[in-house]
Amino acid sequence: MKGFGPADAAFRRALRDVLGSDNVLEDPADCWPYGYDNSRRQARPEAVGFATEAGQVRDVVRLCNEAHVPLVARGRGTGTTGAAVPVAGGLVLSLERMDRILELAPDDRLIVVEPGAINRAVQEAAATAGFFWPPDPSSADYCTVGGNLAHNSAGPRAVKYGTPRENTLGLRAVTGAGEPIRAGVRTTKGVVGYDLTRLIIGSEGTLAVITEATLRLTPLPEDRRAIRALYTDIGSAAAAIARVMAQPVTPSALEYIGGLGLDLVRDSPGVRVPPDARALLLIEVDGPAGCVADAARAVAAAAKGAGLLDIEVGGRGEDAADLWAARKALSPALRGLAPKKVNEDVAVPVSRLPAFVEGVDGLSARYRIPIVNFGHAGNGNIHTNLMVDPQESGQVERAERCLSDLFNLVLALGGTLSGEHGVGLEKRAFVTREIDPVTLEVMRRVKRELDPNDILNPGKVLPEPVGPA
Amino acid sequence: MKGFGPADAAFRRALRDVLGSDNVLEDPADCWPYGYDNSRRQARPEAVGFATEAGQVRDVVRLCNEAHVPLVARGRGTGTTGAAVPVAGGLVLSLERMDRILELAPDDRLIVVEPGAINRAVQEAAATAGFFWPPDPSSADYCTVGGNLAHNSAGPRAVKYGTPRENTLGLRAVTGAGEPIRAGVRTTKGVVGYDLTRLIIGSEGTLAVITEATLRLTPLPEDRRAIRALYTDIGSAAAAIARVMAQPVTPSALEYIGGLGLDLVRDSPGVRVPPDARALLLIEVDGPAGCVADAARAVAAAAKGAGLLDIEVGGRGEDAADLWAARKALSPALRGLAPKKVNEDVAVPVSRLPAFVEGVDGLSARYRIPIVNFGHAGNGNIHTNLMVDPQESGQVERAERCLSDLFNLVLALGGTLSGEHGVGLEKRAFVTREIDPVTLEVMRRVKRELDPNDILNPGKVLPEPVGPA
Repeated sequence: MKGFGPADAAFRRALRDVLGSDNVLEDPADCWPYGYDNSRRQARPEAVGFATEAGQVRDVVRLCNEAHVPLVARGRGTGTTGAAVPVAGGLVLSLERMDRILELAPDDRLIVVEPGAINRAVQEAAATAGFFWPPDPSSADYCTVGGNLAHNSAGPRAVKYGTPRENTLGLRAVTGAGEPIRAGVRTTKGVVGYDLTRLIIGSEGTLAVITEATLRLTPLPEDRRAIRALYTDIGSAAAAIARVMAQPVTPSALEYIGGLGLDLVRDSPGVRVPPDARALLLIEVDGPAGCVADAARAVAAAAKGAGLLDIEVGGRGEDAADLWAARKALSPALRGLAPKKVNEDVAVPVSRLPAFVEGVDGLSARYRIPIVNFGHAGNGNIHTNLMVDPQESGQVERAERCLSDLFNLVLALGGTLSGEHGVGLEKRAFVTREIDPVTLEVMRRVKRELDPNDILNPGKVLPEPVGPA
Repeated sequence: MKGFGPADAAFRRALRDVLGSDNVLEDPADCWPYGYDNSRRQARPEAVGFATEAGQVRDVVRLCNEAHVPLVARGRGTGTTGAAVPVAGGLVLSLERMDRILELAPDDRLIVVEPGAINRAVQEAAATAGFFWPPDPSSADYCTVGGNLAHNSAGPRAVKYGTPRENTLGLRAVTGAGEPIRAGVRTTKGVVGYDLTRLIIGSEGTLAVITEATLRLTPLPEDRRAIRALYTDIGSAAAAIARVMAQPVTPSALEYIGGLGLDLVRDSPGVRVPPDARALLLIEVDGPAGCVADAARAVAAAAKGAGLLDIEVGGRGEDAADLWAARKALSPALRGLAPKKVNEDVAVPVSRLPAFVEGVDGLSARYRIPIVNFGHAGNGNIHTNLMVDPQESGQVERAERCLSDLFNLVLALGGTLSGEHGVGLEKRAFVTREIDPVTLEVMRRVKRELDPNDILNPGKVLPEPVGPA
């Protein structure tokens, strides 16, 4: 299956009938911009449709299902794994015009939104009632809730507040067979029928197209405090992470930057990192105004120990922002240094962080590729950046072998290949290393029931079966 | 399909081969005790097997799948919906001897247990490292983790800490086709493949038999405070619940007892409830020692408002226990009064609690059945007890009609038929009122893929399809 095939003209006409001519792009030049994501991969869809309401999504999916046309649901294309790239051609169904906030119910701690709503817009709407939705990927200003749900995208706050799976009450969605389903509830407890909500979350548009989400809200904390701790080595920092996670105050962020990352930002304005520091922890606590100072003291006490070079507990506002200077300076520095960097987001159990970082250092040396580690240490979720220079002979090939070894290392440590970016195209070939063939076969059967003709985002998430299915 | 059928002797022999003769009960008198649960329903299995390791579970499921013998996985039978009652005959596979705690990893905030481990034993093991597992059903002293997962059983702490779905990282399980699968991760983030973990949680043993669970642990709070607030009417109490849930300190419990429940316990030792009180809230906050007093003040301030009669903020230990006297006295009082009470556990959005309680009062009057409401108000999860007296002419029939109207009321208010007890047999006939036919059909297809011969707990959760499947 690739492209519209013989159904071409009739299919295009039917598509325009459902969406309206103004909501369909067919010129290849117009279609190109809807074929990329932040993985820098790109493929041209044969058409792009814009849905404005759920009934259109249902009708478009039915059209595609009948004509066996691939359909890739798309938010704003901020994903990093190629999950939104239409590698099988077909139709990209953009949900960016379905961006309404349908209901804000603060007494019930929930907000109902369309999938194209921007994360930031949801946060702003919730804030008017004193709430927030915990998932906060770094692209929150322009990524959509639908994309967040498709990838189970989290961000730094997940260490305290969880991922979309813990913060979504229910969904409306359309299966690959064009069936409109309603999963979940409007309450924080509910156990009638099977949990299709979380089955669809994280499935990267391969099981159903989300048309509405009921999100669970959390009250905005009254206050917050930032803590910055510098260590002589990763082992000391990792021990501190484990101590912080073992005491009763769960931080609202627990971010890590490794030695090479610190080298990159040492000279940036406001950063103040001494040369012997090889690991930095940025910790945030939040809560009631009367408690955050105590909470910060408890966390800072846990962060202290062997290898600590310096610890600062910030005040509010600008003072706290200062402590985050190193983290904020890092991403631009990385982009400037290695435009072709490979950004992985593996996760390992917190106790295995020292072994992980030691292992990564070994791989970096063996394959002669600088590797910058930073990320959400409280979840063991480390963004591992291979600083690949395509000009340097053989480095791309060495990077591939390095990545392969890196994944083996992560799995040997009891970790997972993706904490929050997802599989998409980037990690599809490696899924069989994490998921055994029997479990994978069960997932394939589930996929078949929700998307019998394999039209929804074909070629993603689950690897092709080996041999006869 | 019912019973062992023609495969009888061979099947029994094979079963003994897998489990050992000492681990198989075949005498009907021995089998009876494994055919009930706390729903007071009972059915006799044709045999009872006790597994002691995961390989046996796999082999027994395979035997049953080949011979088309129903298999009901069983913990300790504390469920209230008949989910563990083997209505189709066949084999009860008891997991009570698979009760080992396999690994406690405090640095990774997790514990790995077998399904037969008692909830209390898990709490005690976790507490040795300063942690707890949030789900705390009232049967925690004798219910199993496997049963908790099968029903997504929560309890009062869920308002702050979530249900099993939010507190389980991964599972090992055996599908109805006898396939051993591994779902989930050992980290708090992970998005590789589909979320089979939460699909299996809450499925009441109809999709797979859980053989191992990796549970997410939370640090034990340093301290806690109880607050008791009495109101003139449910409307005032419900407004207070919404105010409490809208401020930044989420309570660790927010329990409600309605007027009739208060009447039942008014004269119990230590209860001290004035006659004009028609609603009681029991609120608990927990957290770092230095914060709980402030947290209690914030929650108490939110609990104050129109209709408040009295509010007490307790100290620690016995002082706090005093405030819970009314809640503790209620269950024995209910059992004494109406041994045939019908205990429902519907949930409605918090904002709809006043409409719900008003509606229940109306049903109680119309059908002349006393109804006692109490439960987990912070989740909108109200245990609605119909005090049925089977001796009184026509009351059983009236109760049935009352229940039917009650469910319609709950759904009209945007609620769910079960917050945490599950569907089992009790609510199976009503599932079609909550879940639409299209969604139900998708669930049936998922069931078919995980349990192709419908051997796992047949006759539960999903209603029979109407007409040809």
